[in-house]
Amino acid sequence: MRAAFMYEAGDVRVQDAPEATIQQPTDAIVRIVRSCVCGSDLHPYHSLTSADGPVPMGHEFLGIVEETGSEVSGLRRGDLVVSPFAYADNTCEFCRQGLHTSCPHGGFYAVGGIGGAQAEAIRVPQAEGTLFKLPKDVDEKLLPSLLTLADVYGTGYHAAKQARVRPGDSVTVIGDGAVGLLAVLSAKRLGAERVILMGRHKTRTDLGLAFGATDVIAERGDEGIAKVRELTGGHGTRAVLEAVGHRPAYDMAIGAVRPGGVISRVGVPQYEDAPVGFTSLFGPNVTLTGGPAPVRAYIDELLPAVLAGSVDPGRVLDRTLSLEQVPDACRAMDQREALKVLITP
Amino acid sequence: MRAAFMYEAGDVRVQDAPEATIQQPTDAIVRIVRSCVCGSDLHPYHSLTSADGPVPMGHEFLGIVEETGSEVSGLRRGDLVVSPFAYADNTCEFCRQGLHTSCPHGGFYAVGGIGGAQAEAIRVPQAEGTLFKLPKDVDEKLLPSLLTLADVYGTGYHAAKQARVRPGDSVTVIGDGAVGLLAVLSAKRLGAERVILMGRHKTRTDLGLAFGATDVIAERGDEGIAKVRELTGGHGTRAVLEAVGHRPAYDMAIGAVRPGGVISRVGVPQYEDAPVGFTSLFGPNVTLTGGPAPVRAYIDELLPAVLAGSVDPGRVLDRTLSLEQVPDACRAMDQREALKVLITP
Repeated sequence: MRAAFMYEAGDVRVQDAPEATIQQPTDAIVRIVRSCVCGSDLHPYHSLTSADGPVPMGHEFLGIVEETGSEVSGLRRGDLVVSPFAYADNTCEFCRQGLHTSCPHGGFYAVGGIGGAQAEAIRVPQAEGTLFKLPKDVDEKLLPSLLTLADVYGTGYHAAKQARVRPGDSVTVIGDGAVGLLAVLSAKRLGAERVILMGRHKTRTDLGLAFGATDVIAERGDEGIAKVRELTGGHGTRAVLEAVGHRPAYDMAIGAVRPGGVISRVGVPQYEDAPVGFTSLFGPNVTLTGGPAPVRAYIDELLPAVLAGSVDPGRVLDRTLSLEQVPDACRAMDQREALKVLITP
Repeated sequence: MRAAFMYEAGDVRVQDAPEATIQQPTDAIVRIVRSCVCGSDLHPYHSLTSADGPVPMGHEFLGIVEETGSEVSGLRRGDLVVSPFAYADNTCEFCRQGLHTSCPHGGFYAVGGIGGAQAEAIRVPQAEGTLFKLPKDVDEKLLPSLLTLADVYGTGYHAAKQARVRPGDSVTVIGDGAVGLLAVLSAKRLGAERVILMGRHKTRTDLGLAFGATDVIAERGDEGIAKVRELTGGHGTRAVLEAVGHRPAYDMAIGAVRPGGVISRVGVPQYEDAPVGFTSLFGPNVTLTGGPAPVRAYIDELLPAVLAGSVDPGRVLDRTLSLEQVPDACRAMDQREALKVLITP
């Protein structure tokens, strides 16, 4: 089969790879219908060394079940499914609490010997717990929005849920990537009254406004913080959803959050240490939360409005390319010509 | 009047000081009935330089109102009151949310020109919002417990409330000082089933057991973490209440908290930067919360059981000395001969 691999920073190739096959009785093989390139793919796209490559790519997909292992029930050949970016058994104590990313039998695609989703097919471990069956007759126009349930919509929603966004709330979203924009949509759907989007790419922040942002701030750093405070009577917003992952975004979050408020991070931190002492988090009783989103836990909640077409998170997928064009897709996202690229087989 | 001052590390003196007088129409003057020495007084007791001294001492007190400013209503001469360690107007948007420590008109005793409570009398700013009137005929035996509402009981309770401790919960408390022990009591009152107390002073941890701790761990660091995990099926407890404030306690909290759980800090951090990245907080979706306790917000809730005698948080005050003996009180606490010293006039 054909599959994309990253050899080193800037070097992505689509090539022949061994067919995906059942290895465990809990596996399924899924033929990919739609996948996409993730903003997180851009981190190795800048830093991967040839010694660490080649690595498979992709962790978001819709597909058709092709084969199931002997211990998989509830799924059959021909089912249309969406997969969360993290596989999980969906039965352990963590999964039952909705924390599928901490499942002891779980893991991530495209690492540790598991293939990637930018491919013709993929082996899905813990298939029964992982794959979410969609209606068969779904309108093809809905596929991009359904695909966002695999990661970016669920991740934006996690940011808002962990911050306990509620009706009437004030929220700042840091970052105008797909996750930031879907954090805007999520905050709005949870009833936030004021949603300030910090981002500097007009086509993206325009989509943010369409998703419900009430204000856009292009400034960064201290200037950006001053703007948030100006808009909020000097105090900042009760919630700050941080969808970037770099230290300057953390520092902006500290500056933009109201005393007693919450910083909810879903941008994977590219740093380990950061200020948490009296003058940052402790003195103003600010809560820091977030982490990798257990998106599996949110699909039930988010799916109905997607199927009804009353939300359209798939608008973050603003370009479509084929599997053979994954190298172009990475380049377009890296150069910010595309927000997020949908990949067809 | 007589009042205690710290001149520099290890040098505490009780001396004549100017009488406390009304300076603002929102002030009251309160004659001290009971005060005490706080664990946090031990930080300057180790580090204060003579250039920064002398500083007034004490921020916890029960007293009798002696005089009120022209804008103070609801209080009159002769009222028995307890004061939170932070004064506040109790009317601003933060106070209405129960975050009195962020009141823009608020502040702390014994700093910024405000006197201390280890004195014969004290000037209370924002007296109407700050002072909580107690029943006049209260049994003298209840005074130690009522005094804990000024700080340590409310602070332990804040740790548990911020961690959202609930019935059936598992909780680790780090630190066997007065706040840690009252965090144990608070977690238990909120329904925690398992309360693991980490501390190494037997008389203190025995009081922790009396307050409801189910397990005591004397080990620290990695050994202590291993013990917590051993007691909890390998995963740690859902909540960790950190009542110490030093970096090793933060690191223990990271090790003892269950994925998806909460670290709630009420020990004033003696550090600014700490790990918050993928391997500490983010990966396991751990929430970090806490800060200076808005104890004023908790008095209504905590008072009835104290008045009824069904809880006895005053047991943390294990020695009584007079105002003139404050230097001895500091020494006894520093040398861990006393847990917390009650000061009579």
